[in-house]
Amino acid sequence: MPFDELDVPELAEIRAAALRIAPFVHRTPVMRSEGLNHLAGCELFFKCENLQKVGAFKARGAHNAVFRLSDEQAACGVATHSSGNHAAALALAAKNRGISAFIVMPSAAPVVKRAAVSGYGAEITDCVSTLEAREQGLAEVVERTSAYVVHPYDDPWVIAGQGSATLEFLEQAEDLDDLIVPVGGGGLASGTCIAGHGLQADLRIFGAEPVGADDAARSLAAGRLIPSISPDTIADGLLTSLSPRTFGVLREHLHSILCVDDEAIAYAMRLIFERMKIVVEPSAAVSLAVILNHRELFAGRRVGVILSGGNVSLDSLPWSQGRERSTARK
Amino acid sequence: MPFDELDVPELAEIRAAALRIAPFVHRTPVMRSEGLNHLAGCELFFKCENLQKVGAFKARGAHNAVFRLSDEQAACGVATHSSGNHAAALALAAKNRGISAFIVMPSAAPVVKRAAVSGYGAEITDCVSTLEAREQGLAEVVERTSAYVVHPYDDPWVIAGQGSATLEFLEQAEDLDDLIVPVGGGGLASGTCIAGHGLQADLRIFGAEPVGADDAARSLAAGRLIPSISPDTIADGLLTSLSPRTFGVLREHLHSILCVDDEAIAYAMRLIFERMKIVVEPSAAVSLAVILNHRELFAGRRVGVILSGGNVSLDSLPWSQGRERSTARK
Repeated sequence: MPFDELDVPELAEIRAAALRIAPFVHRTPVMRSEGLNHLAGCELFFKCENLQKVGAFKARGAHNAVFRLSDEQAACGVATHSSGNHAAALALAAKNRGISAFIVMPSAAPVVKRAAVSGYGAEITDCVSTLEAREQGLAEVVERTSAYVVHPYDDPWVIAGQGSATLEFLEQAEDLDDLIVPVGGGGLASGTCIAGHGLQADLRIFGAEPVGADDAARSLAAGRLIPSISPDTIADGLLTSLSPRTFGVLREHLHSILCVDDEAIAYAMRLIFERMKIVVEPSAAVSLAVILNHRELFAGRRVGVILSGGNVSLDSLPWSQGRERSTARK
Repeated sequence: MPFDELDVPELAEIRAAALRIAPFVHRTPVMRSEGLNHLAGCELFFKCENLQKVGAFKARGAHNAVFRLSDEQAACGVATHSSGNHAAALALAAKNRGISAFIVMPSAAPVVKRAAVSGYGAEITDCVSTLEAREQGLAEVVERTSAYVVHPYDDPWVIAGQGSATLEFLEQAEDLDDLIVPVGGGGLASGTCIAGHGLQADLRIFGAEPVGADDAARSLAAGRLIPSISPDTIADGLLTSLSPRTFGVLREHLHSILCVDDEAIAYAMRLIFERMKIVVEPSAAVSLAVILNHRELFAGRRVGVILSGGNVSLDSLPWSQGRERSTARK
């Protein structure tokens, strides 16, 4: 079941994904905060994918990609290169299907992430951090194992899985006016667009990006794909660039992409910890940062925010005494 | 409606409290974590009062105490001395009833806590930190305002309000074998005991205390009230000592009180952040710390844990590189 580089799922495939993965992922809660509504000047609804299995929405796409394979396709296991949430998600999905997972990871990846992947029984292959080394490592693993490669975002089944979060969200929070979704490689954003507009054509869907990794904003402005060369942001889940597939979806569906700097991201992240009492990673806070920086766009509206994940190093939270004072003035 | 120093609420009064406060407090969720079940060797259920209004269970007792007053009793407002969660809870309850709140607070109380109290429209009176100065300050406020004093824990209506958390918990998580509750002044613990045994006589209910503030454990062992002289623990919500009222309840109901040191509390707190992706204060982590230190007592059982609150300074989380390495070995 090969797919073309521009294939994208339809709403029906997102519905099928939701059914397929239901036994393995959480129906995450939607949370609210009066304090944050007051600060933002709108009605906020937070879809808490930080409370998802493996601590991120990636569990959805990985499970859909793994469980849609035929027994024959799955027989040799699955493989990917990733230092982040997709690695853990694919390892868990493979474990749940009872097949092998082969993960190519940079040697410099955090110990806790390696432990999560190996804890699910996946085989880790070390490489250096460059994209070239990762792809080379993955090619060697596939040569050796014949494992099926599951890309972290450039895959219609992965996109369909990520879209299932929005199916749930629009059931849980009625009459939303807007949705805001963080944009990295565009897998979550594409699934959100297809599910969101499939269910509600007048929904405004915004992308949220760090200024230090704003390839999607620049690509949409230019009308052609402009990958990031050396992205730099605390939102480490959003460093990747769009693919032709995800670019096509976002260009068709997004109202616009709004960008914020790392200081605004850290401020929003801290607000979520303080006011909502939940742990989010910087990438998940980008959407709230965008809302707080563009209050005029959202005033009085019902705004849905997808909190994408909660995997953050608790030893290096991105605030300090100095930053605290500066945000207290806002 | 004065009350005797040993009056305690019955189950019916806790049910009445639950109805009375329902419009003003959250029915908080019960969360689970497979990772923590695995670490603890039992089935854990977490009642998330860190997600309660004002970030702590205190919202329950304060609302019950304020809304049970007659219009005449409430006419001059309510007052208390507190530097912590009870101050914010009473301020919110008074705001919701439309009456004044007068809070005596040490000048050294954190800016963020003062801001929360004044944000709810309460009047703050400064004092120095000693118990004597607080009580003197409160006496002066009451003399001036004729406000009704609501004690943070030594009050049957406050205890009844706190007990409503357990009514919900036992509906949400069926067939629990054990409940673990942190013990400070004993308000939450007393409400938990009365509600828990009122609904399920064979429930084992344990108190959890920091070794640095173990007056309840020592009092139960001695069979008489032994207040803490100079308690010292990172669990700053548990510094207060039992009253004769709460001592009587705990002596009748608790299976036992288990104590843990601050290192174990910080370790458990970090585990809750990492595995459950929620923010808890040190006092809320004492129960999990107790379970991890006494696995033999809980092996294979269904254990309910009340996460009491989530108000913690994000600038001074109680872990460090050194502590991380030491916990990673466990």
